[in-house]
Amino acid sequence: MAKDKDFVKEITPRDQDFGQWYNDLVRKAELADYAPVRGCMVIRPYGFAIWELMRDALDRRIKATGHENAYFPLLIPESLLQREADHVEGFAPEVAWVTHGGDEKLEERLAIRPTSEAIIGEMYSKWIHSWRDLPLLINQWANVLRWEKVTRLFLRTTEFLWQEGHTCHATYEEAQEETLMILNDVYVDFAEKELAIPMYTGFKTDREKFPGALVTYPIEALMPDGRALQAGTSHNLGQNFSKMFNIRYEDKNNTMQYVWQTSWGVSTRLVGALIMAHGDDRGLRLPPRVAPIQAVIVPIVFEKTKEQVLAKAAEIAQTLEAAGIRVKLDDRDGYKPGWKFNEWEMRGVPIRLEFGPKDMEKNAVFMARRDTGEKASVPLENLADTIIKVLDDIQAGLLAEATEYRDTHTLQTADREEFLQLFEGRPGYVKSPICANGDCEGAVKDDTGATIRFIKLEPEDATSEKCINCGEKAKWWAYFAKAY
Amino acid sequence: MAKDKDFVKEITPRDQDFGQWYNDLVRKAELADYAPVRGCMVIRPYGFAIWELMRDALDRRIKATGHENAYFPLLIPESLLQREADHVEGFAPEVAWVTHGGDEKLEERLAIRPTSEAIIGEMYSKWIHSWRDLPLLINQWANVLRWEKVTRLFLRTTEFLWQEGHTCHATYEEAQEETLMILNDVYVDFAEKELAIPMYTGFKTDREKFPGALVTYPIEALMPDGRALQAGTSHNLGQNFSKMFNIRYEDKNNTMQYVWQTSWGVSTRLVGALIMAHGDDRGLRLPPRVAPIQAVIVPIVFEKTKEQVLAKAAEIAQTLEAAGIRVKLDDRDGYKPGWKFNEWEMRGVPIRLEFGPKDMEKNAVFMARRDTGEKASVPLENLADTIIKVLDDIQAGLLAEATEYRDTHTLQTADREEFLQLFEGRPGYVKSPICANGDCEGAVKDDTGATIRFIKLEPEDATSEKCINCGEKAKWWAYFAKAY
Repeated sequence: MAKDKDFVKEITPRDQDFGQWYNDLVRKAELADYAPVRGCMVIRPYGFAIWELMRDALDRRIKATGHENAYFPLLIPESLLQREADHVEGFAPEVAWVTHGGDEKLEERLAIRPTSEAIIGEMYSKWIHSWRDLPLLINQWANVLRWEKVTRLFLRTTEFLWQEGHTCHATYEEAQEETLMILNDVYVDFAEKELAIPMYTGFKTDREKFPGALVTYPIEALMPDGRALQAGTSHNLGQNFSKMFNIRYEDKNNTMQYVWQTSWGVSTRLVGALIMAHGDDRGLRLPPRVAPIQAVIVPIVFEKTKEQVLAKAAEIAQTLEAAGIRVKLDDRDGYKPGWKFNEWEMRGVPIRLEFGPKDMEKNAVFMARRDTGEKASVPLENLADTIIKVLDDIQAGLLAEATEYRDTHTLQTADREEFLQLFEGRPGYVKSPICANGDCEGAVKDDTGATIRFIKLEPEDATSEKCINCGEKAKWWAYFAKAY
Repeated sequence: MAKDKDFVKEITPRDQDFGQWYNDLVRKAELADYAPVRGCMVIRPYGFAIWELMRDALDRRIKATGHENAYFPLLIPESLLQREADHVEGFAPEVAWVTHGGDEKLEERLAIRPTSEAIIGEMYSKWIHSWRDLPLLINQWANVLRWEKVTRLFLRTTEFLWQEGHTCHATYEEAQEETLMILNDVYVDFAEKELAIPMYTGFKTDREKFPGALVTYPIEALMPDGRALQAGTSHNLGQNFSKMFNIRYEDKNNTMQYVWQTSWGVSTRLVGALIMAHGDDRGLRLPPRVAPIQAVIVPIVFEKTKEQVLAKAAEIAQTLEAAGIRVKLDDRDGYKPGWKFNEWEMRGVPIRLEFGPKDMEKNAVFMARRDTGEKASVPLENLADTIIKVLDDIQAGLLAEATEYRDTHTLQTADREEFLQLFEGRPGYVKSPICANGDCEGAVKDDTGATIRFIKLEPEDATSEKCINCGEKAKWWAYFAKAY
């Protein structure tokens, strides 16, 4: 794809074909590309810069809550993966197996980690001895691999990047507190403040929980096509792994006890969520806090005033950079301003500043907001302050917009006919009563394609209602949606 | 290993058995541990915190010189790895092969990347079209895997973490400039300023170069046991890969040209170098710039004054933290001060501050330096300034010490007998004349175990000397050493 001067990258309109719009955007904004191995992706520099900002913002929160980073090996012996029965049953079909090292056939197959509970459990059993060693609060940033049948850039790829926290505690209560602290204080806070994506929280039904967990708590977002997206999970693992991996500590009474564990993770899938949650027909709209470029300056140059305009534009860029704004001066030759406008709109840069001879005369700059499309001439005086305020405004506006969409697409019905009718389309979330029978959950999925995304942390009692599937007495209100 | 109150961790004296000293230190300072898969390691939180500081300091330099980060896939199809003949010959014996995904046998084996030239070359051939796309300056931080026969924590492990830069240029000259810029301005600068390890630079002989490179330029350090350690490499790849992967651009005259490439990397091996370069019989000595804890405060508590001492110690910690010092207040119960002193010495914390009732009375703190062992009472007034100065002094002192060792262990001889005699031990570097015949290099290795580590960037002419092996006319002076 040659970068011709007048080339404008076209993307499929979002309402016409949401899936195609997404694919076009990911490829044309140069966020990611397909790799030669089926389902694997290359994260290109612009996409990776977004991920780095997300990673750093999340890493700060993980460390501020007392966790340390470490690194565990990529390869897990098959026998270790098989220790926890539910765990291996859940993951074995998705595992890539290493069978040869150099020319040598291995005696035991090695799994490329699909997640690291098994290898970390094995190490923890060696490291933990006494109550003094608890709590053990470790996180790792790593690549993992799951042999997926159907893949999509960022959203579901064979290999992906993530963080996985793995903690050990003396009691169930401490483990539960950690599980919910991560869910609310780390994940929801991060998603709303940095990504401008509002999150529902709750717990998963047994059918949908992590293989090996007692209870799984997701953060759930709603995408503009009406599909839900599980954006992260925090698991209370109970003693399921500590018993299988023999992770024990001597308590203050000199009695050996199994530890209580949690694990929790979010992944590069969040980049996909970010793209979908805020993008429009002109491309990405990045929340300023995770935008690699927060303001781009496009100089408007004419032969006569070129030198002065470029010099002054560079000065403006320096001023903004000194104020902590991630700014780029796009002074490339051979591209017309209009082409650059389209390029940076496509790439979702929150603020564009146009600067030409007329602006220079007025001691001003022409500002265009990516979120609302608003345009205005802005004085150079106190420009950094102005920009910082507008960036904050954009950040807040994107969250408000996404929240309004989510709230107006969270419906409620106890009526089976209405429920079925709603799920002929993609209505968003539908809150409906369900009994405690997992088979009913399965039947709803077969009938509609919708699954229970979560039940509220404080379950909403529905014992006066009838189950949306079987018509018998319901137990609680559940949030159904079609999902990614 | 229970953390008993009076437990003092013992390590083998360095002069008694350097290898055992190293292993003891890595394990007992909790830097790393062996994993269940042969040759793989777990990087524990303290070791990983050192790596994070190193990574961030290097990443800043990589970005400041115009490079962007990206992420390429872990898995490389066998056919891609085979494209460049020297490359596959060099790496195939060390590759771990994935043959199954879930229950499915793969049609083509997939290599876990031992390095990423092949997969990146394949992507670059799709991304690069015009001279406008050059230079392309990309780096990635990733795990790689090489099926090593003999392994050692950090120094040579089956899986390791590293950064690998991969750049494309329009001309040979630009590629060569990039190769040397990375070597000198990025790697040497980083190693000396952050790790306090002086580096020799030069080029490798053809025998020792990277499989597929035109020329390999290493940074080379000398360890205190007289062995050299290759700490990083920068390769001018010429057009070897661009021709095999068809990476071409249209130049300004509309002619298709193959790009000129470089690649360069350093790895978690540097953590091993850091441990060896500065450690002593009491444990690690960390240069302040890569020390996760730069100053530890150990309160000396007695029943009567406990509350005031702890409160004041916390205040001191806050003051230092506010000044940007990485400080830890070790107020753990159940450990005696002496145990804590040993613990933090073992872990290489540059400065220990003891604070008890007597210090409180004097409005002072008792400071112990890890590098020299010096101890002194220091006023609390302007403590942060004092600490910052001492940290700078320690950083400079460690570099000076390592440089002096390296310089006094760089010998020179043109005499074969002396050469052979020197290499009955481990003398450090020995600079000797060699001819251009690779067989002589091989013979020296067979006779002594020493290899040519590098020849100076500006080769030192030795045509008036005789080759240390064959006695024929020599070409240049080469730096020989036994190496890790």
